[in-house]
Amino acid sequence: MQIVRTISQLNNLINAVKKEGKTVGFVPTMGYLHEGHISLVEEAKKHDDFIVMSIFVNPLQFGPNEDFELYPRDLKRDEKLAKMANVDVIFYPDVQEMYQKDLTCTVHVQKGVNALCGKSRPGHFDGVATVVLKLFNIVQPTRAYFGMKDAQQVAVIENLIADFNVPVQLMKCKTLREEDGLARSSRNVYLTNVERQQAPEIYRSLKQAVENIEAGEKSTSKLKEEMISHLSLTTTGEVDYVEILSYPSLDEISAIEGQVIIAIALKFSKARLIDNVTITV
Amino acid sequence: MQIVRTISQLNNLINAVKKEGKTVGFVPTMGYLHEGHISLVEEAKKHDDFIVMSIFVNPLQFGPNEDFELYPRDLKRDEKLAKMANVDVIFYPDVQEMYQKDLTCTVHVQKGVNALCGKSRPGHFDGVATVVLKLFNIVQPTRAYFGMKDAQQVAVIENLIADFNVPVQLMKCKTLREEDGLARSSRNVYLTNVERQQAPEIYRSLKQAVENIEAGEKSTSKLKEEMISHLSLTTTGEVDYVEILSYPSLDEISAIEGQVIIAIALKFSKARLIDNVTITV
Repeated sequence: MQIVRTISQLNNLINAVKKEGKTVGFVPTMGYLHEGHISLVEEAKKHDDFIVMSIFVNPLQFGPNEDFELYPRDLKRDEKLAKMANVDVIFYPDVQEMYQKDLTCTVHVQKGVNALCGKSRPGHFDGVATVVLKLFNIVQPTRAYFGMKDAQQVAVIENLIADFNVPVQLMKCKTLREEDGLARSSRNVYLTNVERQQAPEIYRSLKQAVENIEAGEKSTSKLKEEMISHLSLTTTGEVDYVEILSYPSLDEISAIEGQVIIAIALKFSKARLIDNVTITV
Repeated sequence: MQIVRTISQLNNLINAVKKEGKTVGFVPTMGYLHEGHISLVEEAKKHDDFIVMSIFVNPLQFGPNEDFELYPRDLKRDEKLAKMANVDVIFYPDVQEMYQKDLTCTVHVQKGVNALCGKSRPGHFDGVATVVLKLFNIVQPTRAYFGMKDAQQVAVIENLIADFNVPVQLMKCKTLREEDGLARSSRNVYLTNVERQQAPEIYRSLKQAVENIEAGEKSTSKLKEEMISHLSLTTTGEVDYVEILSYPSLDEISAIEGQVIIAIALKFSKARLIDNVTITV
């Protein structure tokens, strides 16, 4: 496995790989890898010949009061995990390499950003879309792999690709779960024992909503009420949001129709957990 | 010469061309071709094996009070001219093909848009950058050819390519001029005989400024004053702007340093003419 720090070196490598007729799978990350990232690599290995993982903590997507400097970094550990997962190249540029001058052009995400987690992070998805577009142009992958755990991010990327005709295939990968259904997350370690026992209720609540929809329920307000009441009865967490939106446009809807996302954010004492399911009716 | 109206058909064609190891030269236009466009094709033929010209009047770059509907269109004539110039493919999508859904993501141009012609056209360059990015992703050219007559547009595209790491080589092509120095433009036909005789003073004024800079003049205000006075003395036109800016960042500068653009817009009775030169000191 190679670690590449410059765009020009990566370009040379990718060109050589493509000349051999190989396809390129791309897994963008901010590092500090966990099983979720590794499951994306495993999915990529099923479809693509050559796997590029980027590790880049993108300052553009952090707000002024957010913790860009404090975001956890551990290249040595990431390197070991990526190697074990048979990643071919880690692209590990520094901020100067990615942003060689002040940007004149940025991507502006006009819709679906005032819902879900975007509500509390103005400008966040502009930063995400801009860096992902840059990475797509640098890596020029055949396919790019994103986890549906961050469904809003996936929706933005899906729109980015469609709106700008980016020549890459988006691979939306299932959320990795524990045996009891809890979505894997680096934040789960912050749960108390009691909270850890309650946390699977998030996914249970999502599954119950899906069952109700399949049984014919159309009203999003009724579905949301039931989920909120379920979470209140079964957990000590505080509901940050329970939302049902069209997907990937992320518009508010009153009745279930077409593809929708059902999403929950629940605040426990030291961890805010998010989870979601999408369903097409 | 083929006329292709769909993105998927163009993709197939370009993929086949690239598999043969050919390079692709791209000349984006809004149609109603004139010698300026043809000179871009001629330049493209010098470097690239396969020439794609797009003809697309982009609604996104027209303001609410601008004449999108009235913009001149004449495919039959364009087809003849492109064929004579040995264009290989005209990409001629309709608006529905280019904008299949409402855009969630657009390119936002943050700098250099309140100068020159951008001043009076808010949002114009966002629309230009967005459609050019789309076209780059659709055509995936080796090189793209733009005329320096629209220097501000070229500056925006230069920043777009650098900021988003777009894998295309920008070819900045010289402004095509009449024998007497007047920049070629479809608008020149609207000049009266007297105005047509005066119009070359625009380029003379630009050349005089270059000579003064080469002779050591550093003050942009002095240079601008002299140009304005030259234009007032030698033409009946009204000066819309005379600007000297850094290039391609298009920042206001008080002293000449590095690469700069000197630009003029002059209003005659029925035509507003623009011209510019860039110089590196």
